[in-house]
Amino acid sequence: MAAGASALAQKLSRFLPLKPDELESLAGLEARRRAIPAHTELVHERQTGHQAFILLEGWACAYKLLPDGGRQVIDFSIPGDFMGLRSVLLRTSDHAFAAVSDILVAEVSAGQMIDTFQRRPRLAAAILWAASRDEAMVVEHLVSIGRRSALVRMAHLLLELGLRLQLVGLGSPGGYACPLNQYLLADALGLTAIHVNRVLRQLRERGLVTLREEQVEFHDPAGLHSLAGYHTGYLDQGEGPAS
Amino acid sequence: MAAGASALAQKLSRFLPLKPDELESLAGLEARRRAIPAHTELVHERQTGHQAFILLEGWACAYKLLPDGGRQVIDFSIPGDFMGLRSVLLRTSDHAFAAVSDILVAEVSAGQMIDTFQRRPRLAAAILWAASRDEAMVVEHLVSIGRRSALVRMAHLLLELGLRLQLVGLGSPGGYACPLNQYLLADALGLTAIHVNRVLRQLRERGLVTLREEQVEFHDPAGLHSLAGYHTGYLDQGEGPAS
Repeated sequence: MAAGASALAQKLSRFLPLKPDELESLAGLEARRRAIPAHTELVHERQTGHQAFILLEGWACAYKLLPDGGRQVIDFSIPGDFMGLRSVLLRTSDHAFAAVSDILVAEVSAGQMIDTFQRRPRLAAAILWAASRDEAMVVEHLVSIGRRSALVRMAHLLLELGLRLQLVGLGSPGGYACPLNQYLLADALGLTAIHVNRVLRQLRERGLVTLREEQVEFHDPAGLHSLAGYHTGYLDQGEGPAS
Repeated sequence: MAAGASALAQKLSRFLPLKPDELESLAGLEARRRAIPAHTELVHERQTGHQAFILLEGWACAYKLLPDGGRQVIDFSIPGDFMGLRSVLLRTSDHAFAAVSDILVAEVSAGQMIDTFQRRPRLAAAILWAASRDEAMVVEHLVSIGRRSALVRMAHLLLELGLRLQLVGLGSPGGYACPLNQYLLADALGLTAIHVNRVLRQLRERGLVTLREEQVEFHDPAGLHSLAGYHTGYLDQGEGPAS
């Protein structure tokens, strides 16, 4: 992978080595760029429009709002992730997206996606692989909320984010920059913000991991893996780079 | 849609009208049939093999087992559903599948899928639509477990299953046959079996819906929709047939 390759190019090349014409098509998908300030909603639920985004820089989140004002965060998006790929196929978006930090995105129309899929079947397979991986993550989040303790949920999420970030050249086995506050974590893990703070304190006091000042620091990765019962298989990215 | 069309053909034709050559390819995918008795595991987690199944008759479920012996049901499969489509792309299956009732499945190899996608792009788009719909359901289940009360979760699931079944010509707006017991429902909704029974009793006592002797009966569909805050948009199947 050439230096300067986009996060998405880095990620997809874990599935298969992309050829020059495929990298060129991918660069075409990433060409129409837009900077969006933190906390802006990109797509609202039940929006029509048949357009997707590729996140180039920064963090975003996918969520659903409940009639009672509650919010469930479905997943966090990091550089190299597609957002709203599904609404290219479904008539309306089934959930909303918002910028967590200031972000840079590329807008991709349904027409561009279909054209790319027809002309570049290998690239299409790689994009479907990435989408499958995203779905496997949502399944893990469902399992976490349904059947894992608050402590294990948090450990699982922090490990998962670390592996995902490493795949696109961000962070290291020792930790990563993380703009998620206690409210976002609470809405992702089905907890209250107070419970999130308590769990983070427990993880810190056990000497496993610290999240402080937007930085995740792994003190005992093996211990954290063991606590979380973490299997990396669902991310389908091998053992993770440089670990 | 011709009488005798498979459940999958019925479902996909909600996305686009399938042409004769596409129906023929679909029939090819459904040709290699196997009967499987209730409670049999079809695919275990982390299994490799790159094969998917189309459920032709009966009910199945997708689940993950936890190290502590717990189980999270991710989704129930009904006729016309793909099972394990994702493991055609990922190196290993990220969850397991088991037959809930006696079932009839068609085995589909990765090679067949890829061949079909290359030769029949419209059929491929319809299959991706169905897969997107399945993912939208998993997202709804995540929202249910994370942020909905036990009563609303159950109402939501029973309504969703009803709409899915109607799309493939099973059940009616008044109800449907349903082989799910309290343990499966508990593992799908993140509840205990005792809690499931209590919630079902509440729904019955409110005159909304009954699940008894493997039969769901809607007494007050409008009241149930209102309780559940149910929006059908994520199923992308219009308002539902004959309702």
